[in-house]
Amino acid sequence: MKRTRFQQGLDDLKQKLLQMGGMAESAIEAATESYLQRDPKLCQLVFEREDSINAAERAIDELALDLLAMQQPMAVDLRFIVAVLKINSDIERVGDQAVNIAQRTMDLLAGPEVAEIPVDIGRMTATVSTMMRRALESFLSGKAEVAQAVLEMDNIVDRMKDEAFVILVQRMKQDPDRAQAYLDVLLITRNLERVADHATNISEDVIFWVRGADVRHRVGLDPEDRPAMPQ
Amino acid sequence: MKRTRFQQGLDDLKQKLLQMGGMAESAIEAATESYLQRDPKLCQLVFEREDSINAAERAIDELALDLLAMQQPMAVDLRFIVAVLKINSDIERVGDQAVNIAQRTMDLLAGPEVAEIPVDIGRMTATVSTMMRRALESFLSGKAEVAQAVLEMDNIVDRMKDEAFVILVQRMKQDPDRAQAYLDVLLITRNLERVADHATNISEDVIFWVRGADVRHRVGLDPEDRPAMPQ
Repeated sequence: MKRTRFQQGLDDLKQKLLQMGGMAESAIEAATESYLQRDPKLCQLVFEREDSINAAERAIDELALDLLAMQQPMAVDLRFIVAVLKINSDIERVGDQAVNIAQRTMDLLAGPEVAEIPVDIGRMTATVSTMMRRALESFLSGKAEVAQAVLEMDNIVDRMKDEAFVILVQRMKQDPDRAQAYLDVLLITRNLERVADHATNISEDVIFWVRGADVRHRVGLDPEDRPAMPQ
Repeated sequence: MKRTRFQQGLDDLKQKLLQMGGMAESAIEAATESYLQRDPKLCQLVFEREDSINAAERAIDELALDLLAMQQPMAVDLRFIVAVLKINSDIERVGDQAVNIAQRTMDLLAGPEVAEIPVDIGRMTATVSTMMRRALESFLSGKAEVAQAVLEMDNIVDRMKDEAFVILVQRMKQDPDRAQAYLDVLLITRNLERVADHATNISEDVIFWVRGADVRHRVGLDPEDRPAMPQ
């Protein structure tokens, strides 16, 4: 079957967005790896990668606009393109969080050594990365149930963030000389939680696209109960 | 001159977005007022207002999709609708920040009284509110130069945030028993800084709409040097 230029454009858009998502996910992993390894070179890598993510965001927005201008899209294609525009912003902001984490790590490395901080950044990153990966998978496959599973993981990350808060405040009280280091770690947990929020937003946009329903601010409702989007 | 249904729709979209922007801006002001007045009733108001902001976001997205589906928009109208979709997300997240500030304030009110914290949240809020108001004004008037001025204000807020960080870390070291209260205030400054980021994003989207150019990640370039968006 011969594919039209418009359909080819939609496929390109999808591939470009997935590629950018992969870049953002690996930037987060590099950023927390820089923290875990205490490695300033990895921070530098994250800073450099941000430019590529920003360039990808612009290219995707331009392609999406071209496709909207090209012809009268059908309702499902229109929802797809709008979902891409929104997901694109979220992925770019994941890249910003990687930069924030790398900056916190640089700040931490500039201060006095802190032996052991009882917050498992590695575990939190693994959870957040899984959320990002599954959100992108659901976008690739158009499977709303995969996206739905991501929404449910957000609570786990929120709990990790809250636990870290309690632990780190405790540490600050016991060991005030190291307050800045504990604060850096606290801010890293906040950055990771924001990545989880972006993965949640992406998943909601996937559900909006494939189900034609708006699930934002309705998490927990049965999917069948959600009103359909007017076309 | 008789206005078409499509043009009327664009006007409605603009009015609805401005109204929602006003709601989000006043939510931020109520949230920091709850902090300044130590008033849990104001926090409650912020929590309630979030629902209206979320409902407005859904209604605006639906209207924008209807307009995109209604006819083949001209390039400038297309850019306008895409800008609205993006600004809509940013305004909704400003509402989220108001909720975060109110939650931090509730946390603060639950702890022991802290006499005086040398961070001027009132001044920071005034700056951030001005940014939001001007970003929305630039959207109303289509004046790129107003939006441009907002971009330049972002540095002021970043500086306030950095100053607050230094002061609050110092306080935590001197007075570790009150670490949690200082941390709450620090997180409020971060929430305000995120509002400034959203105002910046909104301004960039306005410039993108009116100039047909993408200024994201290009702040500081002369506007004439920016490449035009392919139509």
